[in-house]
Amino acid sequence: MKQEIKIIGIDDAPFSFGQKKVAVIGVVIRGNAYIEGILKAEIEVDGCDATAIIINLINGTRHKKQLKVIMLDGISLGGFNVVDIQELHKSTGLPVITITREQPDFIKIKNALQKHFVDWKKRWDTILEGNLRQVNGKYPLYVQYVGITFPTVREIISLCTIRGAIPEPIRIAHLIATGITLGESHGRA
Amino acid sequence: MKQEIKIIGIDDAPFSFGQKKVAVIGVVIRGNAYIEGILKAEIEVDGCDATAIIINLINGTRHKKQLKVIMLDGISLGGFNVVDIQELHKSTGLPVITITREQPDFIKIKNALQKHFVDWKKRWDTILEGNLRQVNGKYPLYVQYVGITFPTVREIISLCTIRGAIPEPIRIAHLIATGITLGESHGRA
Repeated sequence: MKQEIKIIGIDDAPFSFGQKKVAVIGVVIRGNAYIEGILKAEIEVDGCDATAIIINLINGTRHKKQLKVIMLDGISLGGFNVVDIQELHKSTGLPVITITREQPDFIKIKNALQKHFVDWKKRWDTILEGNLRQVNGKYPLYVQYVGITFPTVREIISLCTIRGAIPEPIRIAHLIATGITLGESHGRA
Repeated sequence: MKQEIKIIGIDDAPFSFGQKKVAVIGVVIRGNAYIEGILKAEIEVDGCDATAIIINLINGTRHKKQLKVIMLDGISLGGFNVVDIQELHKSTGLPVITITREQPDFIKIKNALQKHFVDWKKRWDTILEGNLRQVNGKYPLYVQYVGITFPTVREIISLCTIRGAIPEPIRIAHLIATGITLGESHGRA
């Protein structure tokens, strides 16, 4: 694995009750350090457009040709706007890794979907796409992934994590998304 | 000079004719690599509030105590909203360095001020604050600075520049400011 592979990390901004749209930030980073570009798009809160919009964002960026991996902060952005990672992988030709600090509580997620969405089954099936595995670095992480093997997932995460648990592409996307929304970023480490 | 000093880099977003307010992005970075926080504020296009708003932004951030230097992308943000770097230095207790790639064309600036602003003299005097010097790295840079010596200015710029001419705090602030405004960042190197 080259140390300098180009990765895009994507996170959504915090949003308030009643908000219709929410910003999604993409950070293109080489290895664990050199930021090459910042992208922004908007998706609907609890909508169904995250997959299409992220596909467009990635296929439309000037960095596309050099990108090697897509990292998402969880499989669901803007509330329950679930990203179809199989579709994202197919339409971009890139491996996809979702990252969460906490083990997803699938019972809670399923209950919430059933309670709030007529199309809950479709969202639920999409959430279950991709293998769920725990990555044991210094701190545990939970990942889902498609188009890539688990050993490579582990290698890439280790390559682009500097401090704490969160890989740089996701950590920085999160800092930007919260910073531009709240005025000052809130970190996670 | 410690390699890991904390610097805040500030740049404004691109704006269109007729726009009243423009975003200003602050990036808190340790050394040349590790991003610690992202800040955002708004200033008036061609207004007079940049100095006060940046003072508040910096004095209000949780990173304040560890900050060692303020870097600005030029002395004027949001058009001709000139930053009083003496005042910024005094009110934050921090050295200030402004960075430009091109040598400021003072005749052109003065003419534009005289043409467009009743209070042009005040803005003009503010622009002339701080020493203007050329820094010769691999690529030349022009700086104005207060509260710091020229050798230290050079040392800090060298410390936090990875590729090209622009120090990382300013380069990344610029990428974020353009990325969140235009959808994709436009780099400078």
